Amino acid sequence: MKLPSRVVERVLEAWPVARLATVGPDGPHAVPIVFARAGGCLWSPVDGKPKRGGELARVAHLRAEPRATLLLDRWDADWSRLWWLRVDVEGAVVCPADPVADVRVAGAERALLAKYPQYEDVPLLGEPPTLLRFTPRRVTSWAAGPEAVPSL
Amino acid sequence: MKLPSRVVERVLEAWPVARLATVGPDGPHAVPIVFARAGGCLWSPVDGKPKRGGELARVAHLRAEPRATLLLDRWDADWSRLWWLRVDVEGAVVCPADPVADVRVAGAERALLAKYPQYEDVPLLGEPPTLLRFTPRRVTSWAAGPEAVPSL
Repeated sequence: MKLPSRVVERVLEAWPVARLATVGPDGPHAVPIVFARAGGCLWSPVDGKPKRGGELARVAHLRAEPRATLLLDRWDADWSRLWWLRVDVEGAVVCPADPVADVRVAGAERALLAKYPQYEDVPLLGEPPTLLRFTPRRVTSWAAGPEAVPSL
Repeated sequence: MKLPSRVVERVLEAWPVARLATVGPDGPHAVPIVFARAGGCLWSPVDGKPKRGGELARVAHLRAEPRATLLLDRWDADWSRLWWLRVDVEGAVVCPADPVADVRVAGAERALLAKYPQYEDVPLLGEPPTLLRFTPRRVTSWAAGPEAVPSL
């Protein structure tokens, strides 16, 4: 079964983690990300958590191929409680220092800070400041059954 | 930091869920999967959990583009405990009914049944019986710090 649309909305607002899949020259790539919803898009910061160095693969990939997917799901050893929500998106790399780039950046930053108190201790943006903006193209969902539907 | 190699081995054996990223005609695709390790590969069944019908996107994608990625990771609200492990793979669609296809199939099925007691109630294979075989090409890992390294 699909997730009810009101549940989809709640998951997109409140679920704490997504797995982002992009495509690079070596094939698909995936990484867990934090995200928040603002202005009709999902936003993910290249934040101050420790990184492997250099421009991140996700950023380089999105510059060359904007099509990406965000997977939100819950693992549970009780398989009657499994569900997933996949959002096919158009990704873009946004520089918050350039307000001409996207007037929704301030709202995106506020949404991220409100959703993740962890940013009291971790910088929201690294250097150079970079946000990923994901414009939803298509939402697909699956739930193992009625008892799998999350209450958020 | 990277995960220590002994931890990588344990995660590949014991972690219960992976997010599989493939590439299709519309861009990247991602779905949570169960998997087990056997014969140097990771294996995932197209099992009896409810499906959306028709040939699964993951199967159709792998037939056309074998390059895929499995992401294993733990979400934690305590970001000092985050880690991920990404396995870039060569995927293949295997028919267990055809023993010529891969002699490792029996071992793969045993490994899946041993890892997931849930298969006492859910058929391991659907119709037509299909296993996905993932041959690792490259393993990449990241951990937020020493306290993030999982003990499995």
